Amino acid sequence: MPTNSPNSWEARADSHNLYGFTDLPTIHSRGAVVVTHGKGPYIYDTAGRSYLDANSGLWNMVAGFDHQGLIDAAKAQYDRFPGYHAFFGRISDQTVLLSEKLIEVSPFDSGKVFYTNSGSEANDTMVKALWFMFRHEGQPERRKILTRVNAYHGVTAVSASMTGKPYVGTFGLPLPGFIHLTCPHYWRFGAADETEEQFTARLARELEETILREGPETIAGFFAEPVMGAGGAIPPSKGYFQAVQPILKKYGIPFIADEVITGFGRTGEVWGCQTYDFQPDAIISSKNITAGFFPMGAIILGPELAQRIQDASEAVEEFPHGFTASGHPVGCAIALKAIDVILNEGLLDNVRALTPQFEAGMAHLAEKANIGEWRGKGLMGALEAVADKDTKRPFDSSLSVSERIANACTDQGLICRPLGQSIVLAPPFIITPAQMDEMFGKLEKAIDKVFAEVA
Amino acid sequence: MPTNSPNSWEARADSHNLYGFTDLPTIHSRGAVVVTHGKGPYIYDTAGRSYLDANSGLWNMVAGFDHQGLIDAAKAQYDRFPGYHAFFGRISDQTVLLSEKLIEVSPFDSGKVFYTNSGSEANDTMVKALWFMFRHEGQPERRKILTRVNAYHGVTAVSASMTGKPYVGTFGLPLPGFIHLTCPHYWRFGAADETEEQFTARLARELEETILREGPETIAGFFAEPVMGAGGAIPPSKGYFQAVQPILKKYGIPFIADEVITGFGRTGEVWGCQTYDFQPDAIISSKNITAGFFPMGAIILGPELAQRIQDASEAVEEFPHGFTASGHPVGCAIALKAIDVILNEGLLDNVRALTPQFEAGMAHLAEKANIGEWRGKGLMGALEAVADKDTKRPFDSSLSVSERIANACTDQGLICRPLGQSIVLAPPFIITPAQMDEMFGKLEKAIDKVFAEVA
Repeated sequence: MPTNSPNSWEARADSHNLYGFTDLPTIHSRGAVVVTHGKGPYIYDTAGRSYLDANSGLWNMVAGFDHQGLIDAAKAQYDRFPGYHAFFGRISDQTVLLSEKLIEVSPFDSGKVFYTNSGSEANDTMVKALWFMFRHEGQPERRKILTRVNAYHGVTAVSASMTGKPYVGTFGLPLPGFIHLTCPHYWRFGAADETEEQFTARLARELEETILREGPETIAGFFAEPVMGAGGAIPPSKGYFQAVQPILKKYGIPFIADEVITGFGRTGEVWGCQTYDFQPDAIISSKNITAGFFPMGAIILGPELAQRIQDASEAVEEFPHGFTASGHPVGCAIALKAIDVILNEGLLDNVRALTPQFEAGMAHLAEKANIGEWRGKGLMGALEAVADKDTKRPFDSSLSVSERIANACTDQGLICRPLGQSIVLAPPFIITPAQMDEMFGKLEKAIDKVFAEVA
Repeated sequence: MPTNSPNSWEARADSHNLYGFTDLPTIHSRGAVVVTHGKGPYIYDTAGRSYLDANSGLWNMVAGFDHQGLIDAAKAQYDRFPGYHAFFGRISDQTVLLSEKLIEVSPFDSGKVFYTNSGSEANDTMVKALWFMFRHEGQPERRKILTRVNAYHGVTAVSASMTGKPYVGTFGLPLPGFIHLTCPHYWRFGAADETEEQFTARLARELEETILREGPETIAGFFAEPVMGAGGAIPPSKGYFQAVQPILKKYGIPFIADEVITGFGRTGEVWGCQTYDFQPDAIISSKNITAGFFPMGAIILGPELAQRIQDASEAVEEFPHGFTASGHPVGCAIALKAIDVILNEGLLDNVRALTPQFEAGMAHLAEKANIGEWRGKGLMGALEAVADKDTKRPFDSSLSVSERIANACTDQGLICRPLGQSIVLAPPFIITPAQMDEMFGKLEKAIDKVFAEVA
């Protein structure tokens, strides 16, 4: 419903913004949705329409769009100290407090924290820190980074190189030395005659063969999301992390868990590595760390990497890296409150309590003839559309099935995310059972409408 | 004055933080300064000590550390809408308003804005956008980026590759294809028998010879700070931008002005490119854009690059790039207020009014036997220490002269920044004449003390 008026919000949005990750044909046909405010899990646009945001913004607004405790924490810190950096031996008290809290709630007994403004910056920084550390340790040739197809690690040139999505090619990426292993999605990538255990074992063999082919002495790290997010809410195949971790240890390759999406409760535990019972060498956090109320990323180094990177820094007298707003006092004050809200004010409890309803809702929709699979963990999940359920054949991409479902949802006041041919759901942790019923009810109507058109 | 108590703020800061851009010997001998709050241009630490921050935090807290108008703008937006993204055709009203304002106050008649969380991300994004655009235009081999020695463009792997400082080597950077031209600092790099005009002409020749040697068809862009910031507050040599711009135009190389530090008033005009009278193809903004109250970067594309990047995006149906907090509504509301405060509430006027006092203060200190040069523009400047004023010979680096001066300032409650062998000054735009007197008075004492020890 685009308007032709140059003074409309839609036209004003178009004229001065370079949109990112936005389907331009949809913008041209429907116009931008200009959002003004929110209430609980709902957002409102300039026309007064409301939308239940089943994606928590971008996975991150887990406490909803008007959480009073978080608003109050932000306002109190603006009154107290509205900004500072963490360079040159100066650091805000809130930053010190947050680092203590992050180590306390991490799976590590001790460690060190480094702040950034985003998950992209945190992954980019982690790669630089590994390069820095290995140079100091006399292994400057350890530069290559292992990730997986369908991984999402961000959009800086290096974190985009780690991302295993086709669109990185439009930038002439990945850079050399970024290697993408098979995506651990058994339903899609398992061979016809292969059990899930055999699939996992094959991926473990692929990892070891890749390490040996490239040379272990050339590999600086392995990065993995416990559950793939922007790849389409893809949990690992059975036993995946237990199979890959010993191989990484064998060749001295640091294992970095990218918990930008899974961290702070999304999978039903504080960390995805706890849900899947593995111990990484470092954790990348962002998103939920401030419940979306402030841009922040954090690298949480376990004790061994913390010591090794500190040693390398001492050798050159500093870690010559940092962002102007790294450890911003307002962001840290908000994060302290967000962690408390998630862990101690019922949000994580609600994730656990509502997971059965969430799974049942997806399982119900997966009975449709054109839903090939439902998958997920905790309150992140996906429904995969297929043209043929038996052969798992996808729809012709020109049909834009998932985009049409998402647009049909938007028309009913529900936001969900098309990713490939799947619809991804990641509701805020404050969602109620009635709101979840609303979500699935509207989604079912949209699915039925679109499948009636295309199937 | 580090304490041995494990419960001291200093010890708590040390135990869980990986410090960035922090001299570790200084931390070990003096302890971290843990900062709690601010008042005007002063900050206060946990021990109740106050410091006049002559660097505006990191160039960015130009309205001081407790500006009520900015605090109120932040709080009002937290009450109204505390977070959203700008993906998938949705965007907050504050983001739309800020983009209009940025184009209005830019040197461009029209254009488009893309948001990031930092200057690093903005430079990294600009490089990716150029790669994306040239691929679409059938010139995928246009990948190389030209910057200058002593440039600072950030710390992501790509923006660090653009940065022309020795420490990037500790990460095994720059990446291939990032070329550093001569720093346009006549005092330091001019040949003995060379006038400033001849120096500028030599740098222009070097630029053209570099382009021809590499092949113009391999070069994606030229990035330059109007006044180099972290290189040591280095203004360009006379006529520099007028000499290089025609060469870039001749070979179709986009000219990106990195105005992260200079943008919004630091040099006495809104933009550094206005101070030096050149028209770039795009501007990178950050820091002052929110007066340090929120992490934000913005790419402001002039009309030609906006159209070319939009065309490339239309061809693949999207610009597949963006950060979770790009265009965050709170950041945009703060930026709208910060721009208003700087342009319309007297801050830019104060920069212009106090520049003569600032220059006179530096000129006075430059009469010292061991200050080789004062330099600067508007309210950014530097004093360069030398062992021998006639030969411009620097002190032995083991003497850490600039760090000692900075520490002697800290002891008196003044923060200034050692950069190489220079002391950099960049006071907040709200500084008063009396506070500027305090700044120079304390700096003079510190300089006299340290030169008495080393000279």
